[in-house]
Amino acid sequence: MIVTLIGAGNLATQIASAIVDNGHQIKQIYSRSAFAARALAVKFGCPFTNQTEKIEAGADVYIYAVKDDVLKALIEALPDLGGIHVHTAGSMSMNLFQNLRKSYGVLYPMQTFSKSKSVKFDTIPVFVEGSDNDSLTILKNFAKSISRSVMECGGEQRQSLHLAAVFCCNFVNHLFCITNRLLKENNLPFEPMLPLIKETIDKIQTMSPLEAQTGPAIRKDENVMEKHLKQLSKMPYEQEVYKLLSEGICRMAAEESQKKNIH
Amino acid sequence: MIVTLIGAGNLATQIASAIVDNGHQIKQIYSRSAFAARALAVKFGCPFTNQTEKIEAGADVYIYAVKDDVLKALIEALPDLGGIHVHTAGSMSMNLFQNLRKSYGVLYPMQTFSKSKSVKFDTIPVFVEGSDNDSLTILKNFAKSISRSVMECGGEQRQSLHLAAVFCCNFVNHLFCITNRLLKENNLPFEPMLPLIKETIDKIQTMSPLEAQTGPAIRKDENVMEKHLKQLSKMPYEQEVYKLLSEGICRMAAEESQKKNIH
Repeated sequence: MIVTLIGAGNLATQIASAIVDNGHQIKQIYSRSAFAARALAVKFGCPFTNQTEKIEAGADVYIYAVKDDVLKALIEALPDLGGIHVHTAGSMSMNLFQNLRKSYGVLYPMQTFSKSKSVKFDTIPVFVEGSDNDSLTILKNFAKSISRSVMECGGEQRQSLHLAAVFCCNFVNHLFCITNRLLKENNLPFEPMLPLIKETIDKIQTMSPLEAQTGPAIRKDENVMEKHLKQLSKMPYEQEVYKLLSEGICRMAAEESQKKNIH
Repeated sequence: MIVTLIGAGNLATQIASAIVDNGHQIKQIYSRSAFAARALAVKFGCPFTNQTEKIEAGADVYIYAVKDDVLKALIEALPDLGGIHVHTAGSMSMNLFQNLRKSYGVLYPMQTFSKSKSVKFDTIPVFVEGSDNDSLTILKNFAKSISRSVMECGGEQRQSLHLAAVFCCNFVNHLFCITNRLLKENNLPFEPMLPLIKETIDKIQTMSPLEAQTGPAIRKDENVMEKHLKQLSKMPYEQEVYKLLSEGICRMAAEESQKKNIH
């Protein structure tokens, strides 16, 4: 397939590698930043531009890997150059392309991308949506060529996935930030936490998160929780998080045991 | 070493395996539940009792692996049988033993233990504290025989570690519970989240959690956050968690960039 990349950020960089590694060809890279476009284009030896009017027709797929807040304007700024036009945003509707393109869709790779760390694209779940059967088939085959885990998925479901991903990725990482801060306050290193974190993740490979829950809140250990809240007395934000999530753990356990009693 | 185990729960079970696997001997297992004591004792072919007065002298180490809220009463109920007496609780002071035992300490394995999943004990960080130099040396050597990662650690620091562990283990797992609930509400499976979760953890092996932060909150993407809050309109708890943690992500990023500017 011949692919044009609209965007040269973290995601575009990872997709570009996956495209080239799997025998496809990058026709052109666009970014409003000439610097970013050039940096990525040099890596793959392909043309680049920072002017929308210089994006050429002739690609099979145009992949828009740009920030959500510029996506709409960019779609409107570009003419229909033929091929299939897809965006990569978890929370945006496919209908941004409606009436502006003939063939379009979404190709949402659900992963956390940072510049300084490359990921194996073939393990990333990719969720696809197409404006019509033909587009969907082409997109699915393209997606399957770069990932082993491709699923069809409507817009509403994709938005749910995206929201779920915020909880199990972005918020989880934020809890690591809080952990780090707590440890630093007490001159303790983060490293001894890594085996614990690894085991926390290993557990949910084989049991449901609800079964895997441990800690003072699920044990209803009021003494320990009060002690912890006291330890956090000078950190009001962390204290609030502790309270809210501990209450949540208790409530969720109660709700689940109620469900079991009803069934 | 000859070890007597006070307790027969998740942690006692895992410690018992580590003790026997590393050439030590279990002298006796006590639990107030004869059933639990017997179940564990049978596994290792050792005597058991559910009566405190039948716990025998002659062990080198007495390990109290019981719930925090019964620990104090149990220590008080038992005579000083000689040997070193240690508890395994992250949030409890070593001084529970003060004036009641001659040699005592703490052996805190920082890990999440569930009945249905065994862990490799040798990878678990174990934090030790001793009432005197001799006890500490013996405890350290004993800990080193069952774990590759043994650190000396005072009571206050151990409490900080325990609190930090609640954030990066118990609360992280609770976010997986929320994730699961969100997905179920939309008839989506949990499995496609696993590569994302794995990558979230992989990232913090090589970068700080703060550098690893991604998502709408750190991008200050108000549109996406508003959309997400709307999606959560029928789930007030999850909505509150979303708000609180998103605000926290923004604030923490602002504080850190301020620190950088000052330095």
